[in-house]
Amino acid sequence: MRITPLIEAKAELTDGTTPAGSIVLSTRIRLARNLTGAPFPGWAKEAQRRDILSKSLEVIEALPIMEGGSRLTMDELSPLEKQILHERHLISRELMSSRQSCGVYVSGDQSCAIMVNEEDHLRIQMLRSGLKLKQIFNGINGLDDSLELNLDYAFSPQYGYLTACPTNVGTGMRASAMLHLPGLVLSNHMEKVIRMVNQVGLAVRGLFGEGSDATGSVFQISNQQTLGESEKDILGRLQNILQAVITQEDNARKKLMEEAGAKIRDKIGRACGILQNAHLLSSEEALNLLSLMRFAVDVGMLPEGERARVDRLFIEVQPGHLQYAAGSTIEPNERDPWRARLLREQFDDLPPLNFDGSYNKSE
Amino acid sequence: MRITPLIEAKAELTDGTTPAGSIVLSTRIRLARNLTGAPFPGWAKEAQRRDILSKSLEVIEALPIMEGGSRLTMDELSPLEKQILHERHLISRELMSSRQSCGVYVSGDQSCAIMVNEEDHLRIQMLRSGLKLKQIFNGINGLDDSLELNLDYAFSPQYGYLTACPTNVGTGMRASAMLHLPGLVLSNHMEKVIRMVNQVGLAVRGLFGEGSDATGSVFQISNQQTLGESEKDILGRLQNILQAVITQEDNARKKLMEEAGAKIRDKIGRACGILQNAHLLSSEEALNLLSLMRFAVDVGMLPEGERARVDRLFIEVQPGHLQYAAGSTIEPNERDPWRARLLREQFDDLPPLNFDGSYNKSE
Repeated sequence: MRITPLIEAKAELTDGTTPAGSIVLSTRIRLARNLTGAPFPGWAKEAQRRDILSKSLEVIEALPIMEGGSRLTMDELSPLEKQILHERHLISRELMSSRQSCGVYVSGDQSCAIMVNEEDHLRIQMLRSGLKLKQIFNGINGLDDSLELNLDYAFSPQYGYLTACPTNVGTGMRASAMLHLPGLVLSNHMEKVIRMVNQVGLAVRGLFGEGSDATGSVFQISNQQTLGESEKDILGRLQNILQAVITQEDNARKKLMEEAGAKIRDKIGRACGILQNAHLLSSEEALNLLSLMRFAVDVGMLPEGERARVDRLFIEVQPGHLQYAAGSTIEPNERDPWRARLLREQFDDLPPLNFDGSYNKSE
Repeated sequence: MRITPLIEAKAELTDGTTPAGSIVLSTRIRLARNLTGAPFPGWAKEAQRRDILSKSLEVIEALPIMEGGSRLTMDELSPLEKQILHERHLISRELMSSRQSCGVYVSGDQSCAIMVNEEDHLRIQMLRSGLKLKQIFNGINGLDDSLELNLDYAFSPQYGYLTACPTNVGTGMRASAMLHLPGLVLSNHMEKVIRMVNQVGLAVRGLFGEGSDATGSVFQISNQQTLGESEKDILGRLQNILQAVITQEDNARKKLMEEAGAKIRDKIGRACGILQNAHLLSSEEALNLLSLMRFAVDVGMLPEGERARVDRLFIEVQPGHLQYAAGSTIEPNERDPWRARLLREQFDDLPPLNFDGSYNKSE
């Protein structure tokens, strides 16, 4: 398989070497950029798209950050490979479904991915474990400058960066954080939080972006606005609201453990029992159970070292990864037994749950 | 506690020495009898009830079968003790709620219990593991004859035995079998079976008789009619319908394992995982999970030796037994954690589930 090296390489988000935080799983910034002298990909002729693809990939390939990375064009990938890249948040659903003259360049550690000829000519993304908005912005800003040295960006002094969709015009930036919010979900406060986040002009989505639901208590919070505000202001506002949500989640967890400890212990115990014993597990149920195991780490019922296993499985239970592990295509109606087997095996040697939270105390 | 010896004694239905069948858990016959010269208990004056109680208990005590048995009057028992007796099917809900001048005599092996001053002066019951209608009828018939030697039964040559409620007049006999029918329940055929059983004039009830539901896939099938038909005919008809239900359950199980094996393995695996890990379990959920563990024995996913553990727990998860084991009163809202702990402990050393049913093959 063309993407095997990429799947088997150490990657920050999938090998657990840089553990994600208790609440913020990952932070991501992407920039939409277009080149002058060619229509946006949706309007470009095939020859123009081909030109842009080869020119862009050449420039991207020369970036120091891309040394040891993977250059992948969509026409050479199977649907399964595309799905796997999507499940790793390396390509968008849109790129997954297009074929002609488009592709992605993924850095060796998979923290950086640049899509070519998605909705815009370039979609530059940086993605890291934990809450690192500032660090990522510095990185992607430098990267953007390097690219601009060799590519002529479409830029208007009045509007800023020009993009295919008007919602991206201006900074072309979308910054987001992926949060695990079991406390707010279990105490039924998520609706209130979503309202609060929306009120300050930020969006809340599920694990797989726009249109996906919040399975596994995972929510993505991102800016909506790209025009009339500097990158720094946008990131400052996002950082503030993320801090507020983190505080609310912390409080919700404390309150839950104080007021409904027995119910939480029951839920976590059952989740563990089902993961170790079920023979049919849908992707949705699996994510919800994994969410509870992650929460078990948070409250000291499992050792901190188990976080990496759970986070890796959040990705590995997805249909694409499941089929990759099985080594063959598995029809949708045959996936639940495979997923259940994978999880039984993965949780077979789980340390016993300490329902008094004593794994926390010993640390 | 007055009934401690009785709880801790070896009893056929609770210690698993006489294992119940795969489908028929137990068979029971009870006879309603009344004495001449005194009104039925509901109409009798307190002095008359006292007379009947002492006279009857004296006669019952002298029966050879009652040697080593327990003589219990309701006024000397706490509500918890009465509840425990009811959960062991030794006294009725009606006797449980009455206090004055009534009681029960339970044989040493608890297979025989005679209530005095329930709805009728005497309610004689024999109860055994497995399907043993004929054996029980011979036993209870002999017992009835022995009692009649010393007690003057109210009997009409035209109607037969006279009883407080006209539905018992005639033979005064109700014969029933307790069946475990997970195959018919899981394949949604129970409604059809209940209709069939009702059509031939038999009744279907839940684990605790009239008005109780069929939690744990346990159903009680019994005769309704007591008049105009001999005991032998009633028992023959019951035996026939029981055989028909057993055949249907057998077929349903085979078909389920052939057509929905993965779903059944999943259900059984989850049941095991939840019993070993839950921290809150209602009585109803516990019975439903135990039912699946019993089914696991039936299909060879657990060794036959585990049947006794499951059957014992069907009784021990009931509120009365739970409080007895805890050694103190537990308020209803505090019972679920206790029940979950009991089951976690009881299933801690369960042998691994063999999902290929290989425990059956090695036997």
